[in-house]
Amino acid sequence: MCHLLTMSDLTNEDINEILQDAEWFWKGNTWTTPQKMYSVNLFFEPSTRTKCSFEMAERKLGMEIIPFETNTSSLHKGETLYDTVKTLEAIGVDLAVIRHNQDHYYRELIPNIRIPIINGGDGCGQHPTQSLLDLFTIKQEFGTFKGLNITIIGDISHSRVARSNMEALTKLGANVTFSGPPEWFDHSFSLGNYAPINQAIEHADVVMLLRIQHERHQGKSFYSAEQYHDQYGLTLERVNRMKNGSIIMHPAPINRNVEIADELVECKKSRIFKQMENGVYIRMAVLKRAVEHSLRGCLHELHN
Amino acid sequence: MCHLLTMSDLTNEDINEILQDAEWFWKGNTWTTPQKMYSVNLFFEPSTRTKCSFEMAERKLGMEIIPFETNTSSLHKGETLYDTVKTLEAIGVDLAVIRHNQDHYYRELIPNIRIPIINGGDGCGQHPTQSLLDLFTIKQEFGTFKGLNITIIGDISHSRVARSNMEALTKLGANVTFSGPPEWFDHSFSLGNYAPINQAIEHADVVMLLRIQHERHQGKSFYSAEQYHDQYGLTLERVNRMKNGSIIMHPAPINRNVEIADELVECKKSRIFKQMENGVYIRMAVLKRAVEHSLRGCLHELHN
Amino acid sequence: MCHLLTMSDLTNEDINEILQDAEWFWKGNTWTTPQKMYSVNLFFEPSTRTKCSFEMAERKLGMEIIPFETNTSSLHKGETLYDTVKTLEAIGVDLAVIRHNQDHYYRELIPNIRIPIINGGDGCGQHPTQSLLDLFTIKQEFGTFKGLNITIIGDISHSRVARSNMEALTKLGANVTFSGPPEWFDHSFSLGNYAPINQAIEHADVVMLLRIQHERHQGKSFYSAEQYHDQYGLTLERVNRMKNGSIIMHPAPINRNVEIADELVECKKSRIFKQMENGVYIRMAVLKRAVEHSLRGCLHELHN
Repeated sequence: MCHLLTMSDLTNEDINEILQDAEWFWKGNTWTTPQKMYSVNLFFEPSTRTKCSFEMAERKLGMEIIPFETNTSSLHKGETLYDTVKTLEAIGVDLAVIRHNQDHYYRELIPNIRIPIINGGDGCGQHPTQSLLDLFTIKQEFGTFKGLNITIIGDISHSRVARSNMEALTKLGANVTFSGPPEWFDHSFSLGNYAPINQAIEHADVVMLLRIQHERHQGKSFYSAEQYHDQYGLTLERVNRMKNGSIIMHPAPINRNVEIADELVECKKSRIFKQMENGVYIRMAVLKRAVEHSLRGCLHELHN
Repeated sequence: MCHLLTMSDLTNEDINEILQDAEWFWKGNTWTTPQKMYSVNLFFEPSTRTKCSFEMAERKLGMEIIPFETNTSSLHKGETLYDTVKTLEAIGVDLAVIRHNQDHYYRELIPNIRIPIINGGDGCGQHPTQSLLDLFTIKQEFGTFKGLNITIIGDISHSRVARSNMEALTKLGANVTFSGPPEWFDHSFSLGNYAPINQAIEHADVVMLLRIQHERHQGKSFYSAEQYHDQYGLTLERVNRMKNGSIIMHPAPINRNVEIADELVECKKSRIFKQMENGVYIRMAVLKRAVEHSLRGCLHELHN
Repeated sequence: MCHLLTMSDLTNEDINEILQDAEWFWKGNTWTTPQKMYSVNLFFEPSTRTKCSFEMAERKLGMEIIPFETNTSSLHKGETLYDTVKTLEAIGVDLAVIRHNQDHYYRELIPNIRIPIINGGDGCGQHPTQSLLDLFTIKQEFGTFKGLNITIIGDISHSRVARSNMEALTKLGANVTFSGPPEWFDHSFSLGNYAPINQAIEHADVVMLLRIQHERHQGKSFYSAEQYHDQYGLTLERVNRMKNGSIIMHPAPINRNVEIADELVECKKSRIFKQMENGVYIRMAVLKRAVEHSLRGCLHELHN
């Protein structure tokens, strides 16, 4: 399949192939599309990292990018997402990266759209390239996933990352533990247990902090920044409980002094900016895969 | 002349040349600007299709595009359109595509601007590249315009497309009929008559639907989506009245189940997404023409 | 140093080198970065000229530009400017041009950011590339700065240009006089005196008009457009008081018939659009300098 929509669609073999390609790019190897190809990045929610990271990856693969400003497009004239994407396909765009606030937005696209769709995040659903770059960062550090203890802390029920990562990490042999406000834990997450914050930090190889998504909290239990940091944040005190060789991750953007103490963002254990760097390699790998699958598909049609 | 402002400025010969170039591009031929050239796309009204289509066409001709976000430009500091375009010219931009909500916005530009202006739509005025791509789509289908019956249905008085197309199609030998809400018909349109909807559809070779421009209707007669669809839309019932070999066109964005039944948007008779594809070839042809005229103009000045 | 933050950081020698490089580019010479480099233009305030001018300059040097829309970025999720720039650095951006409404915004960036920052304007602080292009325009005209009388008229206390230019021009040997509303004069500007408007115009080699920054005036003394033009604008009457060989400059955007009579914007004495053209050459020179210093810095680190 050309699309990348959820982590659940990927087998362990798929994941390993993508991680290997990312490492190949990380080592300085280059690959460009065999013909001029055009991509579009449709971001209907704010993004710095993911959008810029895809832009960088696309350019490194020699793709041309058709700019698309979601706030001045015909979506303001009531056009559906399907018609927008179908239009871009008709115009000659070869691949679309989409972030949208609606869960599973891609379901209305898949049946009739013939270009690969890369999911850049759907509502409270998934964010597969974020998961993959997290996996890549962990793999670089530990060489394996088997037996690793991964603690995911924070706004679990709203997190695209928590859901995708839990599934993938478990499938790859790691043990996932959740912590943070108990009322934010999602009991439908059958693959990981909840543990109190200090205990969850002490036994972790990876402490993965999630951003508090203020913009998705409405009428829910409320913590002040200080309260949250004190009760569930990675404080200067708590970081000392972490094991030797363990690392800190955060998908960013960071709320400094909320999820993590300001001074720890760039500390020795932190892989936060490393994750961003790795994001480019992962997206190069994912785009390469989509292009190759898509061209094989086209060739196949030509031969029939 | 380098500019492309209205269909009225083009002779039949000009139109045929542009259609021939578009077909030449459609066949897979390529042409790039003889020197590095820079374009800018100034869209002061929402657009997906037209803006992305120009972006694609410019890239296919090897032009570099200076991005310009109309909502963060100095127009917010009260700068005139003339000063904005003159600035871009001074900076080294070679060509500007402009969409603006003011009718004939280009009149204040033409006297002193020395780079080609391509009109991407002015208020309720014209939208020449849309007309040209409509002509190209009809030509591809029927090989000629002579004697064809073209029915244009909908929001005629607000439509840049209705006006441009009526003029051009008549000049090329087709018969234009209008339909839709009689109170939306513009009696200053001397080149086409009004006919009731079913009759207009039955005798048409081309049924050209127009988008209801909600954003331009204020205090005018109002139809609900259902009412409009029922009375003037291309319904599943009405499509059966269409002749063999006749086609459906729509400039898009489409209001599904208003101007046209959802199920008909991609039906066999529909050329709606074909129009969008053709838009890129037409814009390549129009840009090529502007660049060639402009360079000839420069050479001419050098020789004097 | 790789950064360009204020004019005060530049010695006369630095300035002369930049002006020489700009002239070298103006003569048609070309230079491209020795390896593929990526820039980003972060404009948190409206801009046409400066942003497009940097875009053009970057393209002429062969740089790739990662687009960044400030109104859809994660800054809307509360991310700090530091984290945004650090993210872009992690993603592989090699250079950032930044405009921000906060004075000295760059102070929080400099200690830990490793890519060159080019200041595209900070609050009421500085706007060094505007100053440099002003200097370049004056140098082209008069060949020297020594003994020239430069009159700066208008909204001095809010002007990034007034401050930067006063410092640089004085350092280079010119005499700076200020005029305009006396209550808008900034008495902390020790390097230039205030003179009444007609006298200031009569003795000037360069009449440099400043834009009234309506967006920064709140609760201050108010002039209607007519009043301002009448009392402090360059009117059709006042232009006749100017010396032979003297020139008119304005950083733009222009409020026509406020700072300057409409008819004078493109008159023989005006260098206003020439300034914009020169802006591209200056920015090419500034970017080249930043890239060269930055690459030397990298090489240096490699050798240690």
